[in-house]
Amino acid sequence: MIFTAEQIAALVGGTVEGNASVQVSTFAKIEEGVPGAISFLANPKYEHFLYETKSSVVLVNRDFVAQQPVEATLIRVDNAYETVAKLLTMYQSMQQKKTGVSERAYVSESAQVGEDCYIGPMACIGENVKIGRGTAIYPNVVIDDNVTIGEDCIIYPNATVYHDCKIGSRVTLHAGVVIGADGFGFAPTADGYEKIPQIGIVTIEDDVEIGANSCVDRSTMGTTIIRRGVKLDNLVQIAHNVDVGANTVMSAQVGVAGSAKVGEWCMFGGQVGVSGHLSVGARTQVGAQSGLNNSSIVREGGKVLMGYPAVEHKLFAKQAAAWKQLPDLLKEVAELKRQLEEMKKDN
Amino acid sequence: MIFTAEQIAALVGGTVEGNASVQVSTFAKIEEGVPGAISFLANPKYEHFLYETKSSVVLVNRDFVAQQPVEATLIRVDNAYETVAKLLTMYQSMQQKKTGVSERAYVSESAQVGEDCYIGPMACIGENVKIGRGTAIYPNVVIDDNVTIGEDCIIYPNATVYHDCKIGSRVTLHAGVVIGADGFGFAPTADGYEKIPQIGIVTIEDDVEIGANSCVDRSTMGTTIIRRGVKLDNLVQIAHNVDVGANTVMSAQVGVAGSAKVGEWCMFGGQVGVSGHLSVGARTQVGAQSGLNNSSIVREGGKVLMGYPAVEHKLFAKQAAAWKQLPDLLKEVAELKRQLEEMKKDN
Amino acid sequence: MIFTAEQIAALVGGTVEGNASVQVSTFAKIEEGVPGAISFLANPKYEHFLYETKSSVVLVNRDFVAQQPVEATLIRVDNAYETVAKLLTMYQSMQQKKTGVSERAYVSESAQVGEDCYIGPMACIGENVKIGRGTAIYPNVVIDDNVTIGEDCIIYPNATVYHDCKIGSRVTLHAGVVIGADGFGFAPTADGYEKIPQIGIVTIEDDVEIGANSCVDRSTMGTTIIRRGVKLDNLVQIAHNVDVGANTVMSAQVGVAGSAKVGEWCMFGGQVGVSGHLSVGARTQVGAQSGLNNSSIVREGGKVLMGYPAVEHKLFAKQAAAWKQLPDLLKEVAELKRQLEEMKKDN
Repeated sequence: MIFTAEQIAALVGGTVEGNASVQVSTFAKIEEGVPGAISFLANPKYEHFLYETKSSVVLVNRDFVAQQPVEATLIRVDNAYETVAKLLTMYQSMQQKKTGVSERAYVSESAQVGEDCYIGPMACIGENVKIGRGTAIYPNVVIDDNVTIGEDCIIYPNATVYHDCKIGSRVTLHAGVVIGADGFGFAPTADGYEKIPQIGIVTIEDDVEIGANSCVDRSTMGTTIIRRGVKLDNLVQIAHNVDVGANTVMSAQVGVAGSAKVGEWCMFGGQVGVSGHLSVGARTQVGAQSGLNNSSIVREGGKVLMGYPAVEHKLFAKQAAAWKQLPDLLKEVAELKRQLEEMKKDN
Repeated sequence: MIFTAEQIAALVGGTVEGNASVQVSTFAKIEEGVPGAISFLANPKYEHFLYETKSSVVLVNRDFVAQQPVEATLIRVDNAYETVAKLLTMYQSMQQKKTGVSERAYVSESAQVGEDCYIGPMACIGENVKIGRGTAIYPNVVIDDNVTIGEDCIIYPNATVYHDCKIGSRVTLHAGVVIGADGFGFAPTADGYEKIPQIGIVTIEDDVEIGANSCVDRSTMGTTIIRRGVKLDNLVQIAHNVDVGANTVMSAQVGVAGSAKVGEWCMFGGQVGVSGHLSVGARTQVGAQSGLNNSSIVREGGKVLMGYPAVEHKLFAKQAAAWKQLPDLLKEVAELKRQLEEMKKDN
Repeated sequence: MIFTAEQIAALVGGTVEGNASVQVSTFAKIEEGVPGAISFLANPKYEHFLYETKSSVVLVNRDFVAQQPVEATLIRVDNAYETVAKLLTMYQSMQQKKTGVSERAYVSESAQVGEDCYIGPMACIGENVKIGRGTAIYPNVVIDDNVTIGEDCIIYPNATVYHDCKIGSRVTLHAGVVIGADGFGFAPTADGYEKIPQIGIVTIEDDVEIGANSCVDRSTMGTTIIRRGVKLDNLVQIAHNVDVGANTVMSAQVGVAGSAKVGEWCMFGGQVGVSGHLSVGARTQVGAQSGLNNSSIVREGGKVLMGYPAVEHKLFAKQAAAWKQLPDLLKEVAELKRQLEEMKKDN
């Protein structure tokens, strides 16, 4: 698909500066620009690339003032970053969607598959599974018995959904995701551990995206729940009985232990850990690699937390600064001690 | 399946209090009770739910004294938590087991599959594989050549077992587990790294359960070994040549580096790391996110460890308390210094 | 295959000491030696095993001087460790390689598969995929549309490569690896998050090995790149737009956040985290569980870093030592304060 700068400006409500008839057919980062590509400049840090880029068109904010001559055609918009996201979405929606059920897939006779679904080769769809219209199940995915999946979902290759779990609409599960494996529950005995059966399920609400090789365990009873709009990155672990609030975002390799409750609109950096049974308030932000384990700090919500164990961001900054001075502090205290001894002697 | 309170009491050696003929057919958490469900109360923290629950039957400890009127029928037992685990196990064992080898599976001609096995569609069973009776291999599992698997194992979808590995009986591997990938061994050269072939295997003894997307690498020579009764949670990494002792339990995202030896009956919290070649004594307990790297601390066993690097729990608690006071300490030392200078001047 | 000590010595340029005609057919660790096996002694710590080993042949360094009588035949070489790596490689190259395209695989008509390739049962090869000669695609692997793969690669079971990604030659992807899942990019709105399409790809250069269940995300635009000779262990996360320099090695469970750039010849211990947009200089070594987030410390390269946030190794050692003394330090400062007060009173 080829568009002129003028056509794109009309599409996004922008104004053209430069050659309005120049044509573009792809996207490129501004620092990797090529002729025929459209780029964007949102972060002022990257401004110098604007004067060298080979891209034919660059989206900039309406109030941007160039400090040097620019070869590319500019399109001025209210928010260059948001506009490029919209254009990318339009670009991707024009890609051809896969449809049809492969003869090489295994679909049980009792399964119900909606209209306009794609089921790829080697996918396995168990007994009584219900799949809503427009959903795509990629090759080698396994959907076990009695699972229900809503409309317009995408489940990428080699993902697994265990029996009885419920998945909403517009949910994306990336490759290797495992939904509904047994929660980690064992009762100690004299000889070893006895398994506590995990007869609950996992519920994933609408508009959730879960990254590659992440795991959400089924609950002991009832349901583990990932609420509306949650986004989990790759290799995230959500243990049994956990409740993740709407629109919460977790970066890669985060782990949430059993029965924890995470409020809505939280943001967790990578490799964060949350203790079992903890209740984390809404809009809590947590720095990468931090560990949440103190209910009195986390339950209120709205805080920016950091460290292990995590404390409020400002306290952490002070602690980290003090930590750097710790070796000097030791020396200083020893010196004070020496001086004091001397003074005592003198007195 | 429907049972009366009376029938359940007889089954578990309990005594009924209330309507003995009320019927239940499922389980529910006490706070999510519904008519027709059985719940339990073990943790006194949840007692207030007992007075509101909609569950028809609640298991309580024999010595429990209600503080308010209770609508549900009570069944008193010696240990409500253990009893519910037993009931869950009975409930699950009544679920229909899958059996039979799917025509859509690939089973090599030289493979031996025991009686009453289940092999799901798209599973691949390599040359000379031996599978004991009653074992279930779910769809899209890959068992490579010369692997032996004992009796009554369950291997969930999309798991992989590399060639020559040995798996005992009553072993559960959850979805996406990888057993026997090459250990991470490379020798540096001037141009890059040369791979050190990993010709050993992985041995998994009886009664082991391994969580979704966890990895156990094959050894360079000999075997990586996961001993009897070990339970690993999801996304755990066990490197080559590691030896995990019987009945040790590791929570999600734990990583054990190469050639480490972990004693029996250890318990590791989530995201714990163990350094290569370390020997961790039996019955060591490690707090979440801690890092074990000091042989003199970990080798003895029987300790509760915490922190990075991990130290004994009590010392960690003192350090963590001191850590909180660190910014104040800096100020205090500066103040002492100032006062001392002043006194010197005065003298 | 059976070799005499003499034949092996000729093969590796070594000299025999003891029975030159003794035969071996396998490898064993020196502490697990069995008759008919060859072992090696490189680390002096293991010397005592030499005097007890049941192995028939042991490789030792040319300058090794035995302190006790040795039963095994010795072969003296310049570097016992390197020699055993070579022998292992020879041993493994003699194993029969799988070839041929399984009738149970799904290979799209537009895919091009080179000579001497292996494509296992249930593997799925999408439209316009190109696979170079000698490459092995194990069972249940999914290669999506338009992917190109070079020569002599090995892709183990249940791995997934998303559409359009480019993989070089002699690349190994272990089981469960996911290449090219969407980068984690969402723009907040009033109602939730809007997905930013990830239309870039992943490029993996020659001689890269990626461990089981690791993930490399596709870039927003352009490409995420894993350069020549990189080795990633299991469960590693590489986010979108990241650039990993040639011959860099990352241990298990490392996470590198979006748009970070890691120089060549770096070495990261397990569970290390790297912040987004950070640039890490070449030959940086990072201790396990450390967190890199400070550009002024990491950009130069050539350093040994440790801690959270990571600092230079020597400073970390001092901090860790001070950390141990922290509870005592608190007491000491309190005591100094008391003494000072007393002296003031006395003055």
